[in-house]
Amino acid sequence: MNNIYDSIIIGAGISGMTSAIYLKRYNLNVLIIEKEIPGGQISKASLIENYPGIKKTDGITFSTNLLNQIEELGLKINYEEVIEIKEENEIKIVKTNNNEYKTKTIIIATGRRPRSLNIGEEKYIGKGLSYCATCDGMFYKDEEVIIVGGGNSALEESLYLSDICKKVTILNRSNEIKADKILLEKVQKRNNIEIIYNEEIKEIKEENDKIKGIITKNNKEIKGSGLFVYIGLIPNTEIFKNIKTENGYILVNNNQETNIKGIYAIGDVTKKSLYQLITAASDGALAANHIKNNI
Amino acid sequence: MNNIYDSIIIGAGISGMTSAIYLKRYNLNVLIIEKEIPGGQISKASLIENYPGIKKTDGITFSTNLLNQIEELGLKINYEEVIEIKEENEIKIVKTNNNEYKTKTIIIATGRRPRSLNIGEEKYIGKGLSYCATCDGMFYKDEEVIIVGGGNSALEESLYLSDICKKVTILNRSNEIKADKILLEKVQKRNNIEIIYNEEIKEIKEENDKIKGIITKNNKEIKGSGLFVYIGLIPNTEIFKNIKTENGYILVNNNQETNIKGIYAIGDVTKKSLYQLITAASDGALAANHIKNNI
Repeated sequence: MNNIYDSIIIGAGISGMTSAIYLKRYNLNVLIIEKEIPGGQISKASLIENYPGIKKTDGITFSTNLLNQIEELGLKINYEEVIEIKEENEIKIVKTNNNEYKTKTIIIATGRRPRSLNIGEEKYIGKGLSYCATCDGMFYKDEEVIIVGGGNSALEESLYLSDICKKVTILNRSNEIKADKILLEKVQKRNNIEIIYNEEIKEIKEENDKIKGIITKNNKEIKGSGLFVYIGLIPNTEIFKNIKTENGYILVNNNQETNIKGIYAIGDVTKKSLYQLITAASDGALAANHIKNNI
Repeated sequence: MNNIYDSIIIGAGISGMTSAIYLKRYNLNVLIIEKEIPGGQISKASLIENYPGIKKTDGITFSTNLLNQIEELGLKINYEEVIEIKEENEIKIVKTNNNEYKTKTIIIATGRRPRSLNIGEEKYIGKGLSYCATCDGMFYKDEEVIIVGGGNSALEESLYLSDICKKVTILNRSNEIKADKILLEKVQKRNNIEIIYNEEIKEIKEENDKIKGIITKNNKEIKGSGLFVYIGLIPNTEIFKNIKTENGYILVNNNQETNIKGIYAIGDVTKKSLYQLITAASDGALAANHIKNNI
């Protein structure tokens, strides 16, 4: 408890791990705290094609490589849940479920989590509901599955699932798909993917406690033993009091500083124009660089 | 000449190639123009260890992967030199040594070039002078070489050369090395690397038109058949009239827009706090995203 870190990074997604790489190369004393698995949301992606320098990979491979890279540098991840951050005599305290750590600076890299459909779907996790086709797709081999959402994630995952499943139905809320056109073209070429426009999910149909289909707002019944939800994400900022946010997203300046001196925020948890691996990683490098120059 | 591109990217370094990847995925009509080789400055790096997701690589491998990635997407690079950009009736014109192209937007990604020592060293290119240890290091196998500079590039290249050469002497202008400490530690562990502080190069000594050593400002003679120069970089902005710069670097806003509507700048050519692969790539994605939303 007497050790004072130069920086504590909350969250081991790409932005947090990039900060860690840079801080370590600057020879600073840094700790990463992660409450779930390293990689963050990207570890759930089945296809990554737009990360410059890596032609094609998947989320788990990418996250594992990143983890190897930081372990190689001798960096440590403590698997704990941060419940509070506070300041005492100009030293910052990070309180977790297990420990209290002292640090000069904090980097918030807590990312986002999937938004809820608000139809009580959470009780079907492991019983047909999934947020990760890469993780769970094989459970639905040769079966019919339903995807809710029409963004890049929904379409990328539909391509992955169409290789495994008999049929993939995409439920899109509006009359237009908002994903990259190159993805939409790929989806349209698949015979076993159907996009239903202007529809939302109203109710889940179950059999023996497991999903067997859905009913839409317009009372259409769609069969499917797997339900994959990609309707957006919510920033994980609830525990950070006194930090300025907008719609839950942390506001930062060009150096990734929040409104509180010595507290930075990076990656998907911040308000920004483009939520991508590459922009999150860049945030991480910028915060580390500013810390190096100001510590 | 009747074709109007959605965007022309000037420069095929990491920032330009990242923009191209994103623009193509947005289904826009894009052309890349490059006057030398794809990859830009990074293709000359012998060691890349801080790019998140790739543990360890070298500049040529990295650049080649990036090139494959954009070729796979069907993107084209025209190898020409841009000599002027101008505007006619709201359409932008990019004039090269060979052609004139019409485009709705321009992305300047021309990067930087090595600074000169101003001692007429340029005439020794190919005769002992090099800006790229990866490219030329093997020419000096088991010989003695001299590096000028004390930043990350100088130290990274010294490590690479120390594996090949008998001795590496680093000439550092000040009494302090400004590179990452982790690099300095590695250098200090090598028996065949010597750092000379507070010294500059005054004169090149030659024999039969080839470098055989140098004389320093304090009249010290140092032997070496290879001279590797890493004393900083200059932004390539001379051809861009009417675009706001500071010390030669293009000024951009958070969307990478310059002072002229429809003209963007990304990567090392812009004024920014951190010149890294990852920040350059992020610039490229941001510009592409803004173009997609505003075209």
